[in-house]
Amino acid sequence: MLDVAEQPSPHRVVIVGGGFGGLYAAKMLGRSSAHVTLIDKRNFHLFQPLLYQVATGTLSPADISSPLRGILSDSQNTRILMDEVVDVDPQQQTVITRGQQLEYDTLIVATGVSHHYFGNDHWKTTAPGLKTVEDALDMRRRIFMAFEAAEKESDPEKRKAWLTFVIVGGGPTGVELAGAIAELAFNTLKRDFRTIDTTETRILLLEGMDRILPPYPPELSEKAAISLAKLGVSVQTKTLVTNIADNVVTAKQGDQIEQIPAKTILWAAGVKASSLGQVLCDRTGVGLDRVGRVMVEPDLSISGYPNIFVIGDLANYSHQTEKPLPGVAPVAIQEGQYVARLIKGRIQGKGVSPFKYEEVGSLAVIGQNEAVVDLGFVKLSGAIAWFVWVFAHIYYLIEFDNKLIVMIQWGWNYFTRNRGARLITGEGDLIKVEVDTNGDFRTPTDRKSPVEV
Amino acid sequence: MLDVAEQPSPHRVVIVGGGFGGLYAAKMLGRSSAHVTLIDKRNFHLFQPLLYQVATGTLSPADISSPLRGILSDSQNTRILMDEVVDVDPQQQTVITRGQQLEYDTLIVATGVSHHYFGNDHWKTTAPGLKTVEDALDMRRRIFMAFEAAEKESDPEKRKAWLTFVIVGGGPTGVELAGAIAELAFNTLKRDFRTIDTTETRILLLEGMDRILPPYPPELSEKAAISLAKLGVSVQTKTLVTNIADNVVTAKQGDQIEQIPAKTILWAAGVKASSLGQVLCDRTGVGLDRVGRVMVEPDLSISGYPNIFVIGDLANYSHQTEKPLPGVAPVAIQEGQYVARLIKGRIQGKGVSPFKYEEVGSLAVIGQNEAVVDLGFVKLSGAIAWFVWVFAHIYYLIEFDNKLIVMIQWGWNYFTRNRGARLITGEGDLIKVEVDTNGDFRTPTDRKSPVEV
Repeated sequence: MLDVAEQPSPHRVVIVGGGFGGLYAAKMLGRSSAHVTLIDKRNFHLFQPLLYQVATGTLSPADISSPLRGILSDSQNTRILMDEVVDVDPQQQTVITRGQQLEYDTLIVATGVSHHYFGNDHWKTTAPGLKTVEDALDMRRRIFMAFEAAEKESDPEKRKAWLTFVIVGGGPTGVELAGAIAELAFNTLKRDFRTIDTTETRILLLEGMDRILPPYPPELSEKAAISLAKLGVSVQTKTLVTNIADNVVTAKQGDQIEQIPAKTILWAAGVKASSLGQVLCDRTGVGLDRVGRVMVEPDLSISGYPNIFVIGDLANYSHQTEKPLPGVAPVAIQEGQYVARLIKGRIQGKGVSPFKYEEVGSLAVIGQNEAVVDLGFVKLSGAIAWFVWVFAHIYYLIEFDNKLIVMIQWGWNYFTRNRGARLITGEGDLIKVEVDTNGDFRTPTDRKSPVEV
Repeated sequence: MLDVAEQPSPHRVVIVGGGFGGLYAAKMLGRSSAHVTLIDKRNFHLFQPLLYQVATGTLSPADISSPLRGILSDSQNTRILMDEVVDVDPQQQTVITRGQQLEYDTLIVATGVSHHYFGNDHWKTTAPGLKTVEDALDMRRRIFMAFEAAEKESDPEKRKAWLTFVIVGGGPTGVELAGAIAELAFNTLKRDFRTIDTTETRILLLEGMDRILPPYPPELSEKAAISLAKLGVSVQTKTLVTNIADNVVTAKQGDQIEQIPAKTILWAAGVKASSLGQVLCDRTGVGLDRVGRVMVEPDLSISGYPNIFVIGDLANYSHQTEKPLPGVAPVAIQEGQYVARLIKGRIQGKGVSPFKYEEVGSLAVIGQNEAVVDLGFVKLSGAIAWFVWVFAHIYYLIEFDNKLIVMIQWGWNYFTRNRGARLITGEGDLIKVEVDTNGDFRTPTDRKSPVEV
């Protein structure tokens, strides 16, 4: 099966997913003798680390997206298919998409993760997560509609609920969202309303563990908490969310149960593996971890199938450190590049040593001039960490035409503290005001579909 | 009713619509003693002249939008309400929105126009028009999905239909769309596909009159037609569209009837006045023209109601030239400024002479380095006209934070001929492939709702 060097026809590589892992694998295979097919549901690669800036009105979706065909237009050996893979047949060596079947010699699965509501999927309509462009625009709509609704609301209790933002989950995304909403409320929008005072906005960041940014060194967690408090964010740790209803979050801290009236609830708590993980498990017997990630071998292949690789957030790689490698862009990029190198080596009959992740550090941004960075040999916070964060992102955005635009957008925001991308858009009726049975004004943001409680 | 100078309380101005007319009126009233309320369904002002660039993947919605609250944040006398006006009571001097009633002393109605399908509203789902951000993103999705679908299609006839783009209406919007799609197909996307050759794309611009850009001088129409032909657009004049079905446009040129198989049909043909025109007619007896625009007095008020003004695309102002003033941004801006000046004058007890439009010229862009400009004293085409067009737009974008971003975006596109904003986004299932009863592959772009034929 693997004796590819003797095959007369080109080695066919199918890559599923155009995120960091899949894209970097495709790029590196672009000048090989292999015949590459990259399949993605979307026609663009998304720079997910900056998605929170789309959600909070700093950047536009196109600023952090790049068309896959454009990125790979020079790779004449690479075909892109906008389609969704629904099944894999490892015996026939085919992937089955919604429209067709494709044969592969080597398969790379890099379909990532989505939100996880810990068995409470009905929370999703009330507390959306942040993984796609549409998610980000939905969050943006909710955040800015909340201020608009508060401006129109005469009842002080209801107005307070419109001006309360609850972010569930104190990982990097939760911290970044909370910090950005605080800057909106306390800076950007301060002079924009006549009835409400946006500085009365309440922003709550709820985290189940005993500190925010749990995977980071404790001193950085502490620094991040201090910075968030300075920005006006209330951080509550050791707090579990036990229920989310239309306008109320139920939070449990020890024996204390609190009901928090809030119209805007954002989910940054859990992830679960894409469904292709389960498909691989069913078809090959490979093990999955608790959240459905695929247990991979030291070379990122799956047990018994040396020509099927799983990379990026969907992979659980536990051969290097105690915990699996984290679901961050640098891991996915290095894994994609490693697998591409391994395939090229096999085509040439050469072996490649097991994958090893080169640590590049962890970062989270809190606000203007405020970030925390752990580079391993040094831990930074404050303005210097913020600049490290900026330059790290500019560096990774290097693949993007949009890098210059994003830099200028940031520069502009940095000096003006303005956010141009705060438009409320979407399908359907954006301003419909209904009076529900409780006499509450309801906007489309909480009308999407019924929420069971 | 008008003796406002003697009123002790502030003069209350209600402006309906935050387009060019309403926004410029609000800006000019921002430092007056009046109390201003600006009502709009959206929370942003849209720079509509560049909307075709959002539809064709050059710009992002936020690049050509600016939050109304941000623009008017310094006007402490101005309140913004995100709401929709459904009725007007000229006797009680109130406007009725979906959520509340507001009293006015002076009312400015500036709600513009929308698409008009000449009694064939069922064409709308198949042949969308271009007025809102959502319209533009829908067009973008259709345009780029057509290339994706063509790449997957094996039947040559169907592939041809996917690669056929029909633009109905040869006014500035139709010309701009046709030119931009031609640049996409023949330049930007040329090297992006492996199965299809995008240079085989067929772009048809259909116009009912005997020349495109009918309101422009004939020599500019001719120059525009030549430029479009050079870009690869087939221009068909004296051509009436008699039917639009899911995949076929029926076009009639003289006695010739042609059936054009085309998956992407864009509507740039007709406009009709916003429904508030009819409301004003019902409540005040004011006359409407053929497309529902309000016949206004020489001072832009309506007959018998000197404190109700209609401005912008919704107004039919026929006191200056034989034809009504065209529905373009400079007319709306000047009308908004004029009415604001008139109101300020009345507050101070001063009269203002009738409105007079200062001609600034007409422009339409065809493609890179290709435009036509009629400045009255001189008519230009080619590269010089294109630069006039660029600078005119930059000038009017001056109100926008985004000006710099748009300039850089344009500069980038100019030199690279790349388009970063060609992402396919939207709610729902973007890649769902269904086989319909005819065996056609159907994508969401033609699945929106049933089309009667």
